[in-house]
Amino acid sequence: MQERIEKISSLQNVRVKQVVALSQKSSERRKQGLFVVEGVRELAHCLSHDYELDSAYVCEDVVRDGNDWHALSPLLDGGRQFLVSSAVYQKMAYREGTEGVIGVVRSRPFGLDDIPLSDNPLVVVAEGVEKPGNLGAILRSADAAQADAVIFCDTPTDLYNPNVIRASIGAVFTVPCAVSGSAECIDFLKSRGIQILTAQLQDSELYYATDMTVPTAIVMGTESTGLTTPWRLAADRHIRIPMLGSLDSLNVSVSTAVLLFEAVRQRMGE
Amino acid sequence: MQERIEKISSLQNVRVKQVVALSQKSSERRKQGLFVVEGVRELAHCLSHDYELDSAYVCEDVVRDGNDWHALSPLLDGGRQFLVSSAVYQKMAYREGTEGVIGVVRSRPFGLDDIPLSDNPLVVVAEGVEKPGNLGAILRSADAAQADAVIFCDTPTDLYNPNVIRASIGAVFTVPCAVSGSAECIDFLKSRGIQILTAQLQDSELYYATDMTVPTAIVMGTESTGLTTPWRLAADRHIRIPMLGSLDSLNVSVSTAVLLFEAVRQRMGE
Repeated sequence: MQERIEKISSLQNVRVKQVVALSQKSSERRKQGLFVVEGVRELAHCLSHDYELDSAYVCEDVVRDGNDWHALSPLLDGGRQFLVSSAVYQKMAYREGTEGVIGVVRSRPFGLDDIPLSDNPLVVVAEGVEKPGNLGAILRSADAAQADAVIFCDTPTDLYNPNVIRASIGAVFTVPCAVSGSAECIDFLKSRGIQILTAQLQDSELYYATDMTVPTAIVMGTESTGLTTPWRLAADRHIRIPMLGSLDSLNVSVSTAVLLFEAVRQRMGE
Repeated sequence: MQERIEKISSLQNVRVKQVVALSQKSSERRKQGLFVVEGVRELAHCLSHDYELDSAYVCEDVVRDGNDWHALSPLLDGGRQFLVSSAVYQKMAYREGTEGVIGVVRSRPFGLDDIPLSDNPLVVVAEGVEKPGNLGAILRSADAAQADAVIFCDTPTDLYNPNVIRASIGAVFTVPCAVSGSAECIDFLKSRGIQILTAQLQDSELYYATDMTVPTAIVMGTESTGLTTPWRLAADRHIRIPMLGSLDSLNVSVSTAVLLFEAVRQRMGE
């Protein structure tokens, strides 16, 4: 923090209002082409993955106390920096317990053509999944399994929703993402020779009996309604996780991880 | 619903207050030895798994409209039944969108010795995990994988917490559960010849290279602090899920499912 850095102490400051609006409203995020990232870890993942910082707000308590945020400091040089009072920080912060740093970051398009595919792609497709906690957990698993991408089809939830960023602990920045309609996504996968494996209980084979060592998309629907007909028809194979107990479904982020790590296992040559 | 059934219309009725207290306070649940189950599916799982109904409250709207709850009706005969007004139901209900039936059910002990073990047990141990959503998802996965039991060690969360019941969609009733201290649990597993596999990144082997076809306990710690030293020392093997991306952890319920279904795969002879 240099001497020249402006300090914000007024709760009425226009920038304070901007951050609150960007956190709360996806319409504002779309209109301004900006979104908010809280937390040192999340912001570090974001800024080290080619996102462009617009502005950063550091709470005076953090500067006084010294803290985690210092490691982040060099990453903040790309945008305008502000020191903010405790009261202002509390008003700006969407969640509690973050480390006193908030970044406003420029959004990027989530187009299918922006996805960098490897020679032997492993892709997750989530159709209609909307709970931020599930989206975040799917992204974390995709990061751990080093999937090429996660494609969200007909998802009502904005990926820059603060709860998605939080639940993904930043994986929304580390994993290539796309947002697409289902028809467009099916074309995309088929044109690139990626086999489509749909997770469904009916007319399906056990997931671990399915070869996932070739280019593969694992396609997940919602727990309540499952996948739509276009996906079922487009599938090369239908796969299922055995349900051996009394219930008839798993949490969607749990199922996704079980299938993804089976692909990892097979691809590791085990 | 018979003619003789008492109707409750007063928000001040002592039973209304009892249900609210049981939903909100674990201390009340302990004191009274009772807990609350909302939702037809959850209550059906509960009452068909040897839990004893104390009382049931059916909303007048549901009776008028006809509904899902009729399938449940025979299960309610074990306890006293009450018809309640819409206003009373709304006050009693912990969550929205349930189907107009609330049961008050007698708790059971969660002792280690109450767990029925098969010849070749597969057990999940969760140490210190406290988020109801994670506890619920672990229970759902344990149900699907037909684990013998889930043992919660040093867990601050009451398993009869309404959020655990909800997140588990009733698996807390279908899967044998125990609550225990870690030392006691380690003794329990060792005395029964159950190998202890601890999930940890350090000094560990890849999970799918580990034989889980023998009696096995999969032991999970929290995402933030991991497992305590007694568990690490008690382990027969330390196992890890490969983390191939930028982040260093998975959601704990996700990791549990990946490990559990690897055990299922191996035990299915694949």
